[in-house]
Amino acid sequence: MASESEAQRALQYEQTLMYGRYTQDLGTFAKDEAARLRLQEGDTPRPRRPSELLEYSQGRCAPCRVCALQCQRFLISKVGEDWVFLILLGLVMALVSWAMDFAIATCLQAQKWMYGGLDTNVLLQYMAWVTYPTVLITFSAGFTQILAPQAVGSGIPEMKTILRGVVLKEYLTLKTFVAKVIGLTCALGSGMPLGKEGPFVHIASMCAALLSRFLSLFGGFYENEARNIEMLAAACAVGVGCCFAAPIGGVLFSIEVTSTFFAVRNYWRGFFAATFSAFIFRVLAVWNKDEETITALFKTRFRLDFPFDLQELPAFAVIGIASGFGGALFVYLNRKIVQFMRRQKTINRFLMKKRLLFPALVTLIISTLTFPPGFGQFMAGQLTQKDTLVTLFDNQTWAKQGINDEFEYLGILEAWRHPRSNVFVTLVVFILMKFWMSALATTIPVPCGAFMPVFVIGAAFGRLVGESMAAWFPDGIHTDSNIYRIVPGGYAVVGAAALSGAVTHTVSTAVIVFELTGQISHILPVMIAVILANAVAQSLQPSLYDSIIRIKKLPYLPELGWGHHEKYNVRVEDIMVRDIRYVTLNCKYRDLQQVLHSTKMKNLPLVESAESMILLGSIERAQVGALLSSQLSPQRRLMTLRQKVLSEDGHRLSDSSIRFQISTETSSGTPARPALRKPLKPALKRVPSSPPDSPPAGSTDHAGIALKSLFCANATEPTEAHATAYHKAKRVRISIVEEMILGDKMTPAEILEWEEQQLDQLVDFSSAKIDPAPFQLVEHTSLHKTHTIFSLLGLDHAFVTSIGRLVGMVSLKELRKAIEGSLTGKGVKVRPPLASFRDSTASATEADTTALRQLWDRHQHHHMPREAGPGGDEDDDTPKGE
Amino acid sequence: MASESEAQRALQYEQTLMYGRYTQDLGTFAKDEAARLRLQEGDTPRPRRPSELLEYSQGRCAPCRVCALQCQRFLISKVGEDWVFLILLGLVMALVSWAMDFAIATCLQAQKWMYGGLDTNVLLQYMAWVTYPTVLITFSAGFTQILAPQAVGSGIPEMKTILRGVVLKEYLTLKTFVAKVIGLTCALGSGMPLGKEGPFVHIASMCAALLSRFLSLFGGFYENEARNIEMLAAACAVGVGCCFAAPIGGVLFSIEVTSTFFAVRNYWRGFFAATFSAFIFRVLAVWNKDEETITALFKTRFRLDFPFDLQELPAFAVIGIASGFGGALFVYLNRKIVQFMRRQKTINRFLMKKRLLFPALVTLIISTLTFPPGFGQFMAGQLTQKDTLVTLFDNQTWAKQGINDEFEYLGILEAWRHPRSNVFVTLVVFILMKFWMSALATTIPVPCGAFMPVFVIGAAFGRLVGESMAAWFPDGIHTDSNIYRIVPGGYAVVGAAALSGAVTHTVSTAVIVFELTGQISHILPVMIAVILANAVAQSLQPSLYDSIIRIKKLPYLPELGWGHHEKYNVRVEDIMVRDIRYVTLNCKYRDLQQVLHSTKMKNLPLVESAESMILLGSIERAQVGALLSSQLSPQRRLMTLRQKVLSEDGHRLSDSSIRFQISTETSSGTPARPALRKPLKPALKRVPSSPPDSPPAGSTDHAGIALKSLFCANATEPTEAHATAYHKAKRVRISIVEEMILGDKMTPAEILEWEEQQLDQLVDFSSAKIDPAPFQLVEHTSLHKTHTIFSLLGLDHAFVTSIGRLVGMVSLKELRKAIEGSLTGKGVKVRPPLASFRDSTASATEADTTALRQLWDRHQHHHMPREAGPGGDEDDDTPKGE
Repeated sequence: MASESEAQRALQYEQTLMYGRYTQDLGTFAKDEAARLRLQEGDTPRPRRPSELLEYSQGRCAPCRVCALQCQRFLISKVGEDWVFLILLGLVMALVSWAMDFAIATCLQAQKWMYGGLDTNVLLQYMAWVTYPTVLITFSAGFTQILAPQAVGSGIPEMKTILRGVVLKEYLTLKTFVAKVIGLTCALGSGMPLGKEGPFVHIASMCAALLSRFLSLFGGFYENEARNIEMLAAACAVGVGCCFAAPIGGVLFSIEVTSTFFAVRNYWRGFFAATFSAFIFRVLAVWNKDEETITALFKTRFRLDFPFDLQELPAFAVIGIASGFGGALFVYLNRKIVQFMRRQKTINRFLMKKRLLFPALVTLIISTLTFPPGFGQFMAGQLTQKDTLVTLFDNQTWAKQGINDEFEYLGILEAWRHPRSNVFVTLVVFILMKFWMSALATTIPVPCGAFMPVFVIGAAFGRLVGESMAAWFPDGIHTDSNIYRIVPGGYAVVGAAALSGAVTHTVSTAVIVFELTGQISHILPVMIAVILANAVAQSLQPSLYDSIIRIKKLPYLPELGWGHHEKYNVRVEDIMVRDIRYVTLNCKYRDLQQVLHSTKMKNLPLVESAESMILLGSIERAQVGALLSSQLSPQRRLMTLRQKVLSEDGHRLSDSSIRFQISTETSSGTPARPALRKPLKPALKRVPSSPPDSPPAGSTDHAGIALKSLFCANATEPTEAHATAYHKAKRVRISIVEEMILGDKMTPAEILEWEEQQLDQLVDFSSAKIDPAPFQLVEHTSLHKTHTIFSLLGLDHAFVTSIGRLVGMVSLKELRKAIEGSLTGKGVKVRPPLASFRDSTASATEADTTALRQLWDRHQHHHMPREAGPGGDEDDDTPKGE
Repeated sequence: MASESEAQRALQYEQTLMYGRYTQDLGTFAKDEAARLRLQEGDTPRPRRPSELLEYSQGRCAPCRVCALQCQRFLISKVGEDWVFLILLGLVMALVSWAMDFAIATCLQAQKWMYGGLDTNVLLQYMAWVTYPTVLITFSAGFTQILAPQAVGSGIPEMKTILRGVVLKEYLTLKTFVAKVIGLTCALGSGMPLGKEGPFVHIASMCAALLSRFLSLFGGFYENEARNIEMLAAACAVGVGCCFAAPIGGVLFSIEVTSTFFAVRNYWRGFFAATFSAFIFRVLAVWNKDEETITALFKTRFRLDFPFDLQELPAFAVIGIASGFGGALFVYLNRKIVQFMRRQKTINRFLMKKRLLFPALVTLIISTLTFPPGFGQFMAGQLTQKDTLVTLFDNQTWAKQGINDEFEYLGILEAWRHPRSNVFVTLVVFILMKFWMSALATTIPVPCGAFMPVFVIGAAFGRLVGESMAAWFPDGIHTDSNIYRIVPGGYAVVGAAALSGAVTHTVSTAVIVFELTGQISHILPVMIAVILANAVAQSLQPSLYDSIIRIKKLPYLPELGWGHHEKYNVRVEDIMVRDIRYVTLNCKYRDLQQVLHSTKMKNLPLVESAESMILLGSIERAQVGALLSSQLSPQRRLMTLRQKVLSEDGHRLSDSSIRFQISTETSSGTPARPALRKPLKPALKRVPSSPPDSPPAGSTDHAGIALKSLFCANATEPTEAHATAYHKAKRVRISIVEEMILGDKMTPAEILEWEEQQLDQLVDFSSAKIDPAPFQLVEHTSLHKTHTIFSLLGLDHAFVTSIGRLVGMVSLKELRKAIEGSLTGKGVKVRPPLASFRDSTASATEADTTALRQLWDRHQHHHMPREAGPGGDEDDDTPKGE
């Protein structure tokens, strides 16, 4: 136990250095790390030992068994390789995807069958049409609510946060996996305008997490955190890839949506797994005789020789710009619905009580409106999402092009025709209705995404523009020699890519569209539309996923805007918190108490002294609390009491009893104080340095000695003593506990007095875990660079130093505020107050000397408070932040 | 001058923090930064002043002029926006690309015309066929050699290095641009198997650099270094994008080839510029009546309904694996040729004298072999690279499939037919000959890439496999209902993607292939082949670009291998340099001298003292040198002399004369020592702290005071004094210089004595630029994490600390050695000595206590040397590295 916790402490440094983990997760993380360590160390010698023994002991069977063991070891080592993991992941996800698709198709088929079978009575038909999805959605909502509420929603925002290094609780467990898979199947089977892309990213990530935990039974390779993050990134690609059978688009989309900085060395992982997954997914369809060979999911058959005319490009650009506005509106609408539901307290309270009422209600409304004999006839209500997409990408032109060629609506295309109106009206109604329906439906607390609904709306919008163009130019625009008619299906493809790109703020929807349709002939129109849509949408609204991140208040750093020149002017010194609480090396326990009371920072800087302010490291808040509580713990009090009694009795303390005391303290996590440790030393190792009898209560101790004793604390501690002490600890602890129950004979007043006395002692940091290299910035670092470093390293906070001296701190909060503050207002960038102040003084003086003066002003500004109050502790009373 | 150099100093901190710049570039960089600062500050007030004046002074014309000024300001602010830059870049590059394509086509046409016109005499034909490319290549080699030798070669390795933050001299200048464009045009016009992709990346980057320098005439936005790097990354994408009219593939390829970590927020830049560039590039072709509309560069017309059978996939996998071996062989061959040429000293010396002989010789050999009436008839020698590719992607099957359908070779396909052999022989000869020809040709010192030649070879290999399959299964494999014949063109596409992917170690060649052919129907075969080819090639050889980086010895960090579990076991402490030289805060100038003599490190750590070893910052070697030289400068000596004379004469120093002295020192860059500054203070501000009269020659000064005086040095220095002093400095300097010329009246012995005396003084760091936050690692940091951090932040070196104490240093060199050391041997990973040592001790003891013991052992190991020699300076005599 003792050695394990020591190992945990030692290992945590390296991890906290790189990823801004949240404090509550450190415990579990430390356990994982220790487990990894044990496995690693346990693994290397363990398989060796039996085989070595075998070779020396037995005679006959030995070679066989040695060989078998070696084979086993070889297999185990292979299991640890990346590609095995990726193939397994791809395989599992392809199976999951295919099975889910099959189940969803069956569900939808059942609804159609029910609806078709009851065509004698419209009321019965309506009941069936409405009840079926309501039941499914309600079940899905209830099931996920009961089993794992984390499964609700898309999952991409959460994965984005997890890939940044934050550990979200319960997000990658088996329970959530089951809830998400079943919930999603039911939700999509209901025929509501919901998507499966986002949830698939989440499902694939859970699959990867579970798989890595399963495979780690065979070897210890899967316990490394950095590697797990890499695998999760690959899993996200697999999720998108096997959802659309689009490996390249999947990889790119997952990168755009989940990463800020992407390691190119992980690139192949995503491609490998996504390709394998997409391959298996499509092969399953071939084996199931759905398809003759592997082709695209929504194959189009546009002509290749003349896909579009150069003069059609303005129309494509219009689609792009309109989609940009539409995408921003969708995100806005989605957020407003959520916020409205939250703000309305009466509705909210009612819905909280009847949690399943809201999903049921929404489903009821939407399915009523899409009821084919009712309003649904004006919006192709009987088509499923997949059928809608197939019809929209259709190669033919729906609108009347001349008088003589009346187009025949065949098969499922029938749904778009209405005897009393034309196809334009149907398309417009479809777009308008589906727009708010999708925005509303995606707020239902079931596992669902918004990509596919938006994709369908975009395709419909593109089709609308395409049909209009076809009606406007019946013989095409290009009239040189051949007649090339306009292909409205191509417009639908462009619209789908543009709108989904605008909502998600991604460019890779273009690639997804090519892979979905199996044609790349419209590459330039698609790229132009997607880029324009992105430009418009990004300047108006955050992406849907960022919007959800903000709504859910996940710990994430917003992106810098497109045109971010202003960012270069803002510096860390403008946004940093200057009045930070710190722990000095020679402080007393009372100071620790004060610091804990006065600040809520999760990490406290450890400085050499209040005068020098040299930053030595950072210490976690929990650690400071542990130091304090161990100093004031009943065990220690009891110990002191006992010691006092013993010394009053005139007995000399025996060596062994002191050893008991130390071991007890170590096992219960309290720091072993040097003064108590003293009698041990000569028995084990003679260390000439380190003052032999420095009383820790000395008031103004020399910083150098304290520092040195801190640095040497672990070195002078002998290993053997610890090992033996550990074994004795168990026995002793029992007796201590007994004693505690029997006799804590101090009165409250005495306890208070004792605690006050204890608080005046100097803190002994030797047992605390100190991050020896917290991330440091300097005052001049620009906001842009700070943002880059924070996103690159996944930092949570950074200290601002000036030649080793601590001058301030920047955390995610300040950074977020600075970025959002300078992005609020439409287009008008508000600068942080200090930045504008600096500029105004700069313009007042001469240009030549300004830079220097700024530098000096800044220095004076910083030095003032320190010089005014040399004590350094008293002038920091202002609270940390708002 | 004075204030500018101060500003430079101040600004360099933030920049060095992020990018590991090389010392020699810091000077120019500092100038740029200062220029930026001046522009920024000059810009904001300057346009305002005239307009303000106008509003108040004149009456009539004022509104117009105010309006005009505002318009101008608006335009200037727009010029600064990213998208304007990207559009301009795309436009320029599209024009360059199109013009070059036109020139190359004309060159090739001229050769064909000459060859065709001389068909009466074979000898004349041969002379024309051989002389023309030889002249062109020789001219290209000579031209680039004279104008800018940096233009030679691909350019991608150099861009990779530049994007990592290293500044390569003369790489992005106008001269290099001109040399590369003209040299490349000539080289490609010669018809040699050379490519244009790599050079295009370089050309686009130079274009971006020049454009940004041009646009910075209008505004100061283009001077930011981080932004320029982002723009260079986008330019790389543009380069590939407009070379192949493949925007998506271009972006992805440039990312894979040049970046280690990619910022997703720069993604859109690449897409935007590359799309625009590709669009303009293709529109130019339409306007030039080459094409009817915008289509792919090498458009294919494979059937869409059944692109390939599931059972053909093994053949595609075979192409992938074979391409992997082929790609590795190509890289190996290319490197061996370069190394052979270098090693053969006699050849080398001869070639060095006659530099143009090697290119001419190689061209002669290659063009002789491709001479169509000669050996060229067996390898389609008369086809240009473009024609070859068009024929290889052809939709028809060349091999005889039955008896009755004899295939007619039409047009340029004629070249592949030979009356006395069949197409298989031609293809095999073509592949074998082109293979070594391409590997040889790309070593010629002209601007050239290897992508296109490899692409063509890959296509030929794919075609070969495809034709074989077609001959093997004349009616296709799938025999259910319809007959779907095998499409050899599809195999060619797969082969091209696989081989180019193997050589460059990229997956995105798949996307390039889709965009080049305009068809995505073969996505799965292409992906499978590319991934397999990558897997094979990456395990055998580095990529072509990494190979060139190694040959050219560019400062770059190698990638971690695929299966890098071993990396997690190696820690920083195993690879770090422990005996590093450092500068202490209270050291003497003599110590600085010693440090400079004993180490070659570019950055020296600054520690508090040799006992505490607390890392305060890092100081550049050049800075230390400057400190030393300024301390021993003749000016200072003269000053001392003068002072001595004055004080000997009994005169009191006047306030103004001291001010003169300070100003002189500041203007010449020497540190102003606090003792001299003293008399100024009371006149300007009373600072109660800081010891008033501490003699700097005191030997064992208290560290705290020295530290404090360092920190306060700038704060107590008043601004106004400096401003006035600066104005007086110019006048004074002249008189000082005069005095220097007239009277350096000390004898050499006196000078030596004086210098010895000066060396014994304590160093005053107040004027040195100290990086206050050098990057720190801890001993436990794994190699994997170190590699990540180094690549992420583009670091050059990092200090290893343990709770603020400096314990070692890791530089790129150590890291490279550690990575390469563990990757040498085929598959056998050699571990650094300490890592294996740790593991063997671990297996010897009990698993439970090992972690702890390791920790302690390590601590003891580190503390030992410090404790043994408390002076700390004497036991560091061992040289730094090998």
